[in-house]
Amino acid sequence: MSISRRSLLRGSAATLAGLSVSSFAIGKTAAAVAENTADLPDFTASNSPFQIPTQDAPLMLHFNENPIGMSLKAQKAAIQAIPMANRYADPAVPPLRKLAADYHKVKEDNILFSAGSSDAIRICIAAHASPETQFVIPDLTYGDGEFFANAYGLKITKIPSNPNNWAIDLNGMQSAVTDYSGPSIVYLVNPNNPTSTIVNSAEVESWIKSKPKGTIFIIDEAYAEFVNNPDYRSVDHLIAEGLDNVLLLKTFSKIHAMAGMRVGYTVATAEKIKQLSIYVEDDALTLSYPSILAATESMKDKPFLQFSKKSNDVAKSIYIDLLKELQLEYLPSETNFIFHRIPGELATFKQRMQEQHILVGRAFPPADGWCRMSIGTPDEMIYVTEKMREFRKKGWV
Amino acid sequence: MSISRRSLLRGSAATLAGLSVSSFAIGKTAAAVAENTADLPDFTASNSPFQIPTQDAPLMLHFNENPIGMSLKAQKAAIQAIPMANRYADPAVPPLRKLAADYHKVKEDNILFSAGSSDAIRICIAAHASPETQFVIPDLTYGDGEFFANAYGLKITKIPSNPNNWAIDLNGMQSAVTDYSGPSIVYLVNPNNPTSTIVNSAEVESWIKSKPKGTIFIIDEAYAEFVNNPDYRSVDHLIAEGLDNVLLLKTFSKIHAMAGMRVGYTVATAEKIKQLSIYVEDDALTLSYPSILAATESMKDKPFLQFSKKSNDVAKSIYIDLLKELQLEYLPSETNFIFHRIPGELATFKQRMQEQHILVGRAFPPADGWCRMSIGTPDEMIYVTEKMREFRKKGWV
Repeated sequence: MSISRRSLLRGSAATLAGLSVSSFAIGKTAAAVAENTADLPDFTASNSPFQIPTQDAPLMLHFNENPIGMSLKAQKAAIQAIPMANRYADPAVPPLRKLAADYHKVKEDNILFSAGSSDAIRICIAAHASPETQFVIPDLTYGDGEFFANAYGLKITKIPSNPNNWAIDLNGMQSAVTDYSGPSIVYLVNPNNPTSTIVNSAEVESWIKSKPKGTIFIIDEAYAEFVNNPDYRSVDHLIAEGLDNVLLLKTFSKIHAMAGMRVGYTVATAEKIKQLSIYVEDDALTLSYPSILAATESMKDKPFLQFSKKSNDVAKSIYIDLLKELQLEYLPSETNFIFHRIPGELATFKQRMQEQHILVGRAFPPADGWCRMSIGTPDEMIYVTEKMREFRKKGWV
Repeated sequence: MSISRRSLLRGSAATLAGLSVSSFAIGKTAAAVAENTADLPDFTASNSPFQIPTQDAPLMLHFNENPIGMSLKAQKAAIQAIPMANRYADPAVPPLRKLAADYHKVKEDNILFSAGSSDAIRICIAAHASPETQFVIPDLTYGDGEFFANAYGLKITKIPSNPNNWAIDLNGMQSAVTDYSGPSIVYLVNPNNPTSTIVNSAEVESWIKSKPKGTIFIIDEAYAEFVNNPDYRSVDHLIAEGLDNVLLLKTFSKIHAMAGMRVGYTVATAEKIKQLSIYVEDDALTLSYPSILAATESMKDKPFLQFSKKSNDVAKSIYIDLLKELQLEYLPSETNFIFHRIPGELATFKQRMQEQHILVGRAFPPADGWCRMSIGTPDEMIYVTEKMREFRKKGWV
């Protein structure tokens, strides 16, 4: 039995002893984890086993972080970088650039690194900002795009999504571009945050390929590696084909569990990358030595990446079972978080969860009555489900 | 005897055995190190003792890096950050921001972090770029300013320095600002790179305080902590006094020996910082978790910072003695590098040094016949002096 599964059971036992978790849930979860991870090596040895959350060490389900910790190979590489970090690290970047290029089947000069993908959002907007530019987004999406579009004085055009399922109105976005006389930047997060859902890849590609005049597409695929829907695909092949109206954003913060290492990148045609590059320092100098070596090892650590995906799938299924049990509506999640309805005010629910030392997602207007729950480890989600059942008994959810 | 001194002697002994270093130089150096560091704890235990450089492990005296390695306390903090680096690190930034603010006797909202100070140069230029703006620099200074000024389409105004000693012509720069009808950005690196010299602090302050119309001063003090001249002072107090026409740039790459950790910052009035902040992502997200914790510990590690300065002073004095001995003209160095004349072409000298596995500074036109030599450890500089004496015997220097 791997340490991760032992850890799971140890955690569950602790939960059981103190908190009357139903044995059904535990048995089912342990079996699911065992089944799904039987052929995978263990990656969580460096992490503590599950601990009941406290005020000082709350359960952090509010930032879509990856709870399993970085690949141990990546951690080792990061540690080895530290005694060398009195030196500039740019000579260490080429192997990472090659791995990123290979991953997307593009060339090295199609990659521009940045300190996470949030700086990539800024770079892409800055490079295409003009006083006449409109910034087209769904009304419920990741906020950094709108933040920087506002900062650079762009006109924000928000297209309402379906308030029942927050489905993005791609046709509405297309009309907004067509009806506008000036240049447009379309920012599309796919899978989307906070909704966890995807838009149809074929429709997005078709729109990009139609090359609407004066329009740049920023496609943010931060969560792509968590997707299970077989119809989903990255837009990276459009860049490999030479399309210069699309900028793909990627991050190491999610599947690689490296949010604190600040590694992200943009994929685009070589000419576009050159245009973007003046909006950040030399991209090989924007990453730290430990971050470069960790990202390099993490990209090579395929078993870790498989485990990262599986752990999320298993933990998510535990929470989905709970949502079904409580008959709380949720959107089909293709990410490491899930967007579900709660009765009453989010602020009240959030506060009650915080009293249990569980931190959940912030408000995402206009989606009142919805909560974005980041997916923790299977252990953590068992704990959350038990708290949710207690809340149900109290009539809170 | 501390490990650093043992390391020095071990290195020197190795040098002596293989390479006939004059015992005078070794004895003098060891005594100087012993005298200067007697009351300081040892910080170099984690670094290897001096090794004769090889093609695979050359002596790197070409990037003004700090050869002693990061503070061991900083290294330890960086290592401790790695298992937590699946989490976003921005909550760890406030103590570092406080330390940086205290260091300059300003407030936390006077600090904007960036991935090294080279991104700070870009940010400051981007925030003040207009098609009419001129960028005023001495003709021999750090190149990143000119690079980004060109990238943003600014008019570059280079003021020739005295070709005998590369003294910056402050009066000439002032005239360039006065004579220009549009806005100006003045970029002044003090101490300057590659010349290693300082400009008169009182004159710089007086110019800034005169508030020339439409003029922003970017004062880059990357090397300030190495200065020995008692007349030198930082411009930080001008910002504390509320002057909003000056932006001070700082880096952890030099005295803190953290070039590969990518930590720098801008000091300016709160209003200016707000204006600059849209040209980089949330500044607390631009730094990696290991970098934040390492920088925090390094700022607190005063004995390390003292050692870092002393090691440079001692190593520099070894090289200056050599330059005197060989009667090679050099500029008074206030940094961790030294700018000195060489006979003949730099390319030839550089190539010959490289054949000895010693990498020295690149060409800095228009300063033909000058070499920028970064200062290594005392051990390393003993090795370099011996090679230089061999070169003299061959008539190469």
